Amino acid sequence: MSPRHLVNIHELSDDEFISLVDQAAYFKSQYKSNQNNKNHHEKLLGKLIALLFSKRSTRTRISTEGAAAFFGAHPMFLGRDDIQLGKNESLYDTTKVISSMTSCIFARVDSNEDILQLAEHSSVPIINSLCDLYHPLQAITDLLTIKESFNGKTQGLKLAWIGDSNNVINDLAIAALKMGINVSICIPDSIEFNSLIISKANEVCQRNNTTFEIVHNPLQALNNSNIIVTDTWISMGQELEKQQKLKQFEGYQITNDLLLKGKVNDNWKFMHCLPRHKEEVSDEVFYSSNSVVFEEAENRLYTAMAVINAFVINNGDLLKKN
Amino acid sequence: MSPRHLVNIHELSDDEFISLVDQAAYFKSQYKSNQNNKNHHEKLLGKLIALLFSKRSTRTRISTEGAAAFFGAHPMFLGRDDIQLGKNESLYDTTKVISSMTSCIFARVDSNEDILQLAEHSSVPIINSLCDLYHPLQAITDLLTIKESFNGKTQGLKLAWIGDSNNVINDLAIAALKMGINVSICIPDSIEFNSLIISKANEVCQRNNTTFEIVHNPLQALNNSNIIVTDTWISMGQELEKQQKLKQFEGYQITNDLLLKGKVNDNWKFMHCLPRHKEEVSDEVFYSSNSVVFEEAENRLYTAMAVINAFVINNGDLLKKN
Amino acid sequence: MSPRHLVNIHELSDDEFISLVDQAAYFKSQYKSNQNNKNHHEKLLGKLIALLFSKRSTRTRISTEGAAAFFGAHPMFLGRDDIQLGKNESLYDTTKVISSMTSCIFARVDSNEDILQLAEHSSVPIINSLCDLYHPLQAITDLLTIKESFNGKTQGLKLAWIGDSNNVINDLAIAALKMGINVSICIPDSIEFNSLIISKANEVCQRNNTTFEIVHNPLQALNNSNIIVTDTWISMGQELEKQQKLKQFEGYQITNDLLLKGKVNDNWKFMHCLPRHKEEVSDEVFYSSNSVVFEEAENRLYTAMAVINAFVINNGDLLKKN
Repeated sequence: MSPRHLVNIHELSDDEFISLVDQAAYFKSQYKSNQNNKNHHEKLLGKLIALLFSKRSTRTRISTEGAAAFFGAHPMFLGRDDIQLGKNESLYDTTKVISSMTSCIFARVDSNEDILQLAEHSSVPIINSLCDLYHPLQAITDLLTIKESFNGKTQGLKLAWIGDSNNVINDLAIAALKMGINVSICIPDSIEFNSLIISKANEVCQRNNTTFEIVHNPLQALNNSNIIVTDTWISMGQELEKQQKLKQFEGYQITNDLLLKGKVNDNWKFMHCLPRHKEEVSDEVFYSSNSVVFEEAENRLYTAMAVINAFVINNGDLLKKN
Repeated sequence: MSPRHLVNIHELSDDEFISLVDQAAYFKSQYKSNQNNKNHHEKLLGKLIALLFSKRSTRTRISTEGAAAFFGAHPMFLGRDDIQLGKNESLYDTTKVISSMTSCIFARVDSNEDILQLAEHSSVPIINSLCDLYHPLQAITDLLTIKESFNGKTQGLKLAWIGDSNNVINDLAIAALKMGINVSICIPDSIEFNSLIISKANEVCQRNNTTFEIVHNPLQALNNSNIIVTDTWISMGQELEKQQKLKQFEGYQITNDLLLKGKVNDNWKFMHCLPRHKEEVSDEVFYSSNSVVFEEAENRLYTAMAVINAFVINNGDLLKKN
Repeated sequence: MSPRHLVNIHELSDDEFISLVDQAAYFKSQYKSNQNNKNHHEKLLGKLIALLFSKRSTRTRISTEGAAAFFGAHPMFLGRDDIQLGKNESLYDTTKVISSMTSCIFARVDSNEDILQLAEHSSVPIINSLCDLYHPLQAITDLLTIKESFNGKTQGLKLAWIGDSNNVINDLAIAALKMGINVSICIPDSIEFNSLIISKANEVCQRNNTTFEIVHNPLQALNNSNIIVTDTWISMGQELEKQQKLKQFEGYQITNDLLLKGKVNDNWKFMHCLPRHKEEVSDEVFYSSNSVVFEEAENRLYTAMAVINAFVINNGDLLKKN
């Protein structure tokens, strides 16, 4: 029987996604209170969980290793120097071999195509830990953080994304909509948004009466928003294009002044998946008491626990209670 | 008291080798059925097992880390960038220090000389995890795989090796002979076979009535063989000599046509320790239902468990039942 | 509540330092006798301990990983290629994130300034695992080794340091004085000794009637000494200055002849924190029966256990019995 994989958020049913967020909250309270840790530790006792990382990723690595250890598994980090997918051996062969000796593979690869190939051949769950198109672990984390920040009530909130069209917002948009949050995405008009995500987003909106829009003026997205999110525009390895990007994203830096002009809601929260650079958000916002960026980062740990629990321990039954 | 080390297969008595294969089978069934895993996990609870790897080695690394974790130990991977044997510190000093803080050292080094030096100075078992002369973990794995593939009956089978003269066949030949399997090795006549192995092989043949031969025509080795094995001719770092090697090994690629011409037994099995390249075996053979290459790879995990059990937990008493 | 960090030895009270040495001895006996290991293993079961290492360090890495595993935690090694402090993200952000997902951070960084910044922002204990100014883990280890070598009686012994003015002696001098050992430091007169350490040393001397001196003639320091200690003069990365250093330290190589001329005590012991090079000590001394360098290296493991116990498990109450 083929295992269930986590590739992106839009492949999950609304209930399944909400269940993952709830499980993350549950494991957070278990971990923080040191309750049942012996019991949880026995669930994958002595098993191996592989981290197949072709790029560096501090938060993803730490949270995954921590979650594996929580369940008694040994996380085995395989970086670019340890294994080169498709080089010296076919991806098929490597996947067959690694999956035969492990309980799960967290893969942080370049292209979603690689994730799909891993998923096709693996005998254990593949967890997409960041690819060019999606970042589902971040989306679960973000919705947990939003839920905590608004006392569990997400229905009717407005999320404003001011930034690039990228993997993070592709999953976050769908995730927010699934939990009843209206989504307004502001990207430069020279940049296209993923058409599959637009279509998936519209499907969710019709199901649950939320709204989804793509705009090009930050003030429009910010207007009456509760949650303001951005991400770096200049990814690792793209530093050469920095000047061009700075011009393209002129007026996108999130500052107190912009939030004021944008007439955000009084109870606004700021989020960022890190690492952060000053060009996308000022210190006054990033380190303000309305910023939940460090809670958000910590929540990656509990998200990884929820995902291991649902996909590995519960064999892909995402609705199963803990 | 000096610990017992695993350097190669010919140093083990026939009974000891057979016992290691049996232990690997035992741990496979324990692991797969999740039986007694709490009990096994306590055997090296909280101990450290070092992986001293001067070269990359996916299968060896994963299987060793998995086996260490199974017994509750923490596998500590030390790659070429983490430790450079004999550089900045004498090998003697490094060995004394590492062995004083660990329960076992899996060493994947360049030369057998390094293994012998490590073994001389270490206060804990040194497990040869691949050197220029031997690959004992692969040989145990291969005999477990053969035993499984032929319902436990290895006596009288014929193993044909079509390939290079190398570390893998040096141990595999002796291992097969120890379990009653006749061995026919086909290598280019421009290549010499290790004379110590020839002498050790002949000793086993005399003891248990098996046969051992070195030939230069693939068809001769394949004739009536049950198990066909090859390995890469072009090792990591030798890519420059590729054209020369391809010429030297002309006619050695294992294909359906070659197997037919070679008149192999109907119940033939194909094995390869991976990674595999197309020049040594065609897709039709490598991915056929007669190929047991992925079972073989997975069996590395249980072999590592058997070796840790025999050399570390049972203090080198290889005949001790689990 | 801010956690307690281990930055250097002089910040610890005398009783606290002595307690750490006692705890290291306790865990050594527990570990060696395999007593209570299940109990100890539950203390940090399934938690994460980060090793933030900007430089290679074999002994520190192995001992820390071993101690973490002993208490059931998963040690996560982050080397220079895994994380670059202050690059691509502010040190503040990185510290907040890592400390939110781990129980403790062992930091092996270049400058003490980095340790202080980590300590300022971290929500979990920062353990200085070697910086330009201090090496507290080595000092605890060394006093445990001295205590063992002199049957528990350290009062009135004399320690002679023949070498460079560096991080190791900065902490070792204070540590020895705290346990009633007189300290004589011989460094070339072209090199200055840390003035803060001189002042802190004098404070301890006044409290407990020990003596502390800095001299430039090895024979003077060696005279009637019980413990002779040196360290490498030429650190990793400083190989270019080798010729200059050899000239500066002429007459400093510890040999049998020098010890004889220096009139050391009959029961002398030689110590070195490793890795060792021949220019600072001859083979005859380094490998003699009076040398305790390998016991010293092994004791790093028990020191790491004591430090995790005191700073993490006992929340910084260093006087708490195990």
